[in-house]
Amino acid sequence: MSEETRAPSRRSVLGWGGAGLALGAAAAGGTVALTRGGDHTAPAADGGAAVPFHGDRQAGIATAVQDRLHFAAFDVKTEDRAELVRLLKDWTRAAALMTAGHEVGEGAFGGLPEAPPDDTGEALGLRPSRLTLTIGFGPSLFDGRFGLAGRRPGALVELPKFPGDNLDPARSGGDLCVQACADDPQVAVHAIRNLARIGFGKVAVRWSQLGFGKTSSTTPDAQTPRNMMGFKDGTRNIAGTDAKALDQHVWVGPEDVRGASAWLAGGSYLVARRIRMNIETWDRTSLQEQEDVFGRDKAEGAPVGKAKEHDEPFLKAMKPDAHVRLAHPDSNGGATILRRGYSFTDGTDGLGRLDAGLFFLAYQRDVRKGFVPVQTALARHDALNEYIQHVGSALFAVPPGVRDKDDWWGRALFS
Amino acid sequence: MSEETRAPSRRSVLGWGGAGLALGAAAAGGTVALTRGGDHTAPAADGGAAVPFHGDRQAGIATAVQDRLHFAAFDVKTEDRAELVRLLKDWTRAAALMTAGHEVGEGAFGGLPEAPPDDTGEALGLRPSRLTLTIGFGPSLFDGRFGLAGRRPGALVELPKFPGDNLDPARSGGDLCVQACADDPQVAVHAIRNLARIGFGKVAVRWSQLGFGKTSSTTPDAQTPRNMMGFKDGTRNIAGTDAKALDQHVWVGPEDVRGASAWLAGGSYLVARRIRMNIETWDRTSLQEQEDVFGRDKAEGAPVGKAKEHDEPFLKAMKPDAHVRLAHPDSNGGATILRRGYSFTDGTDGLGRLDAGLFFLAYQRDVRKGFVPVQTALARHDALNEYIQHVGSALFAVPPGVRDKDDWWGRALFS
Repeated sequence: MSEETRAPSRRSVLGWGGAGLALGAAAAGGTVALTRGGDHTAPAADGGAAVPFHGDRQAGIATAVQDRLHFAAFDVKTEDRAELVRLLKDWTRAAALMTAGHEVGEGAFGGLPEAPPDDTGEALGLRPSRLTLTIGFGPSLFDGRFGLAGRRPGALVELPKFPGDNLDPARSGGDLCVQACADDPQVAVHAIRNLARIGFGKVAVRWSQLGFGKTSSTTPDAQTPRNMMGFKDGTRNIAGTDAKALDQHVWVGPEDVRGASAWLAGGSYLVARRIRMNIETWDRTSLQEQEDVFGRDKAEGAPVGKAKEHDEPFLKAMKPDAHVRLAHPDSNGGATILRRGYSFTDGTDGLGRLDAGLFFLAYQRDVRKGFVPVQTALARHDALNEYIQHVGSALFAVPPGVRDKDDWWGRALFS
Repeated sequence: MSEETRAPSRRSVLGWGGAGLALGAAAAGGTVALTRGGDHTAPAADGGAAVPFHGDRQAGIATAVQDRLHFAAFDVKTEDRAELVRLLKDWTRAAALMTAGHEVGEGAFGGLPEAPPDDTGEALGLRPSRLTLTIGFGPSLFDGRFGLAGRRPGALVELPKFPGDNLDPARSGGDLCVQACADDPQVAVHAIRNLARIGFGKVAVRWSQLGFGKTSSTTPDAQTPRNMMGFKDGTRNIAGTDAKALDQHVWVGPEDVRGASAWLAGGSYLVARRIRMNIETWDRTSLQEQEDVFGRDKAEGAPVGKAKEHDEPFLKAMKPDAHVRLAHPDSNGGATILRRGYSFTDGTDGLGRLDAGLFFLAYQRDVRKGFVPVQTALARHDALNEYIQHVGSALFAVPPGVRDKDDWWGRALFS
């Protein structure tokens, strides 16, 4: 787990080189806390703090889930491998600065007046806000344009078409993704925007998603958030502090990726699904039906027949098509994923219905033993299917962390 | 100005009647602070507090601007005046509960198991978060369906078509609007959703807008927020504590609305405009050009030739087409409006460009002396027009406050 530090509000630093040195020095050891500003380690509850960027793992996975999300999938437009590599290096440098609460490059007004500013400026004066930036590589990146065809990991499959899927290609796939999580949405939006800007002409945003409320927590002691159906979500999620469970279910081990795909060791796989909820139908459903559908009571979140949210579920007490029963590891050969999803609402559709739901994000060690079996069971039988529809889908291989200032996103893959 | 109170996290109350009595008693006098939970008046910085619903003015106008917005415009579907009146009464009751941090009706699980819950539940456990709900009536409500044609105030005009407008009818107009502002987006979204649900079959959401970051402040001592162009916005906004300026420029006086439109005395007019920014073009513009366009420097926000953000602008030092110069009251016969807008980003368009910008909200005493002259000048000459486009527009008459538990949104209009 990352430690966190208090940090002053974000401000310009003089040039990239100096900042890189400062960050590199502070981050020696990977998870040592940043110490700019004479700071102390802060509790996870301090939404203004900085999360260290450098480390063995990328931040934004086991990190205590931040309040807001901006997620973007990119298509690579250049066919020049060297140009893509330069972009990944530039992105890494910018990500290190932004997550530490700095502006990109010389900032919004540190450069020449005749030149566009290096940073778009709208996050100036805001605190680091626990911003994390997490990169992933989609299956299409390995199609041969960049000489990566032989390095595609075995678990970076094409996801099967599940029953009920109604996927919009314009909300699916992508060569690259960046997940920006922060406790302030303006900080997350600023980060994605500046990465897109740095990538202008080389990559283009394929789709993006704003999430306004986390629906899963990786901190079991905290209050479990509620999803847009009004139910507590992620009660039995993997804790970000449970190293054993993370090693077992989330991090790709060296033994999983031998040979040409060894670059992914220490990384993970990310499934992103846009799940639209039929909010109006759900809202006219009886409380009894709602609780039967989930297999938990709505008030406390306790499993059927139990008193407390965190009581062990007795699956056979639930209806056979109850969501919790079908999704439980015991119903899926032990399959366990780390959920990190967010509620979204994107206005209304042409019929005046709220275009809202869950942007599902799940990290796992092997998607073939994680999301795929769970979703196969859910897609076939889940009582919840009457009220939801999967409308977007993507899968990404998430590389390990950037270890120090000389490292960059994807170095092991492109070396 | 409303006082604010600490309040416990939101929870169910037993039935509407009891809650109504409790609220009514506490709110005697209109702006007396709610006292549930044995609490004290809290500073505006306490994002979890409750803003009193009852008072001479609606909250959400002079109230210190909250962090997040969910705005919805509704079409009225019923043609039955009595049914519309019943809805407005139901909405008022629900609004009083939700702004106080309670659930609607008997809550998400207080009713019969065989019935849909009264509340959708996703805000349970969250604090009141300074939620305000502000209603407005659009020009189309006065078209004769409800016998209101004779009661349309003179300033509730059809807005002129301004040069450069590219308005989408699906993002414009509406018979009714509700502005939900809160420091937690889930609380704002919950409120709009539950009002829409209560209105099912009688009203339908015509369009809605989520705002993730405030771009104007009504608290001059606080840090001025930055818009998506990276500039400080709303530096010279009307302060929510400046009773004289509010009376002069924001609140409709009795002398403004004699006779059949006297129901609007104590209210205001709200202009809502969705302003798309050509983010990618802006981001490639030089710092000098950006500063010339605004007439302020980007770092400090100082007017051209001045040192500090709050220094009085010397308009003639600015370029003739500078935004600040053209929008200044001195360039528009004193026209002054209270701005309360939010940044938005709604993903990307079909070309991979960020669909982002400013959802402009402005309150004023008379739109013909406020927004119309200012926007006429801006639409003709503003250098900013190269980088923005108005794509949605609406105007609403905003009635005065709900005085006590027997009062309801629109009572004076429908009585």
